[in-house]
Amino acid sequence: MGAVPVSRGEQTRERILDAAETIFAEQDYSAARLEDVAQAVGIRRASIVYYFSGKQELYDAVEQRVFDAMMARTRQALDPDAPAIDRVLSLIDSWLDFMVERPTVPRLLLRDSANTYPNASAPVRISAIALQAWEEVVRAGQASGELAPANPMHLLHLLGASPIYYAATGQLLGEERSYDPAAPEQLEAFRGLLHKSARALLLPHTD
Amino acid sequence: MGAVPVSRGEQTRERILDAAETIFAEQDYSAARLEDVAQAVGIRRASIVYYFSGKQELYDAVEQRVFDAMMARTRQALDPDAPAIDRVLSLIDSWLDFMVERPTVPRLLLRDSANTYPNASAPVRISAIALQAWEEVVRAGQASGELAPANPMHLLHLLGASPIYYAATGQLLGEERSYDPAAPEQLEAFRGLLHKSARALLLPHTD
Repeated sequence: MGAVPVSRGEQTRERILDAAETIFAEQDYSAARLEDVAQAVGIRRASIVYYFSGKQELYDAVEQRVFDAMMARTRQALDPDAPAIDRVLSLIDSWLDFMVERPTVPRLLLRDSANTYPNASAPVRISAIALQAWEEVVRAGQASGELAPANPMHLLHLLGASPIYYAATGQLLGEERSYDPAAPEQLEAFRGLLHKSARALLLPHTD
Repeated sequence: MGAVPVSRGEQTRERILDAAETIFAEQDYSAARLEDVAQAVGIRRASIVYYFSGKQELYDAVEQRVFDAMMARTRQALDPDAPAIDRVLSLIDSWLDFMVERPTVPRLLLRDSANTYPNASAPVRISAIALQAWEEVVRAGQASGELAPANPMHLLHLLGASPIYYAATGQLLGEERSYDPAAPEQLEAFRGLLHKSARALLLPHTD
């Protein structure tokens, strides 16, 4: 899922990260075991430790790779010359599409959010790249008067948390309410609502 | 946190549930241990098993108590004769206030959402009481033409997930972005945005 690997060692490293991403999405950090990652890759536990000194380092590398991929997508979507509202919508869309295409991601994010870490810990540090991008786009629009004033983190909860829930919990709502988040008609209906909320929250004078 | 206990046995049961709620909010189900709950209460592990046959039964009882308390709050807030939009706003407010007052709850909900369960499992069954209430209020307003058509579960992600994130992650955003979710000025600012989004999503002809 990362960059195209060249050497055999880099290939193995990527395969370890692929397996670990799946396992850390399915299980809490405390329950996930390096042995299970090794087994999924078809190597010995000792071989993982050659690439990652331990579970925490492996977890941090998984998170780093996820956020790097997400932000690469976001940067591609962000037109620096577009109106502020379009930049916000592009950013949200890039996150929504990324999470629908890579279902491990919303579950990793839910786990990060449920676990408390001290302020300076790795998850906060690694996710800061996304929080900063969001804050920059919103604050620039607020500074130019294109967007209404509001706490960017409050806005992030309203517009960034719902894609996580949309992508992660479509099958957790009981039989009669469940849906496939990747089904185009579901995705476009949700995106329409998300954009409607974003315009209402961000465009001035819409009270 | 539950109903006023009467007998010594009911008191102990409530104390076990209080301790378990804290521990299950702090740790994933897989990591939480009955021994830690017993230690927090000041009793032996065997005494817990007298009340709850095992970890799964204790977890389900914690979830049941949380959802019962949340829905009691919601029922109190819901005026059957109020306009549909006011009923939705009252319901959202009751959930937001409940989660801010009882910070274990948003973290339990995040963990439930991150863990996948088969459709008929206990978390889905227990949370169904909240999903049903939401669906009823939204569908009644849609049927009367007061509210715009949209998938109630999509609307739930947009309006129900953000209070979870608001209440759970205020301290997880890095030092310079963190806030106290219970601070009145934060809570009222967020509530104003939440209502704005709800009106935009739910009232007809606001495109």
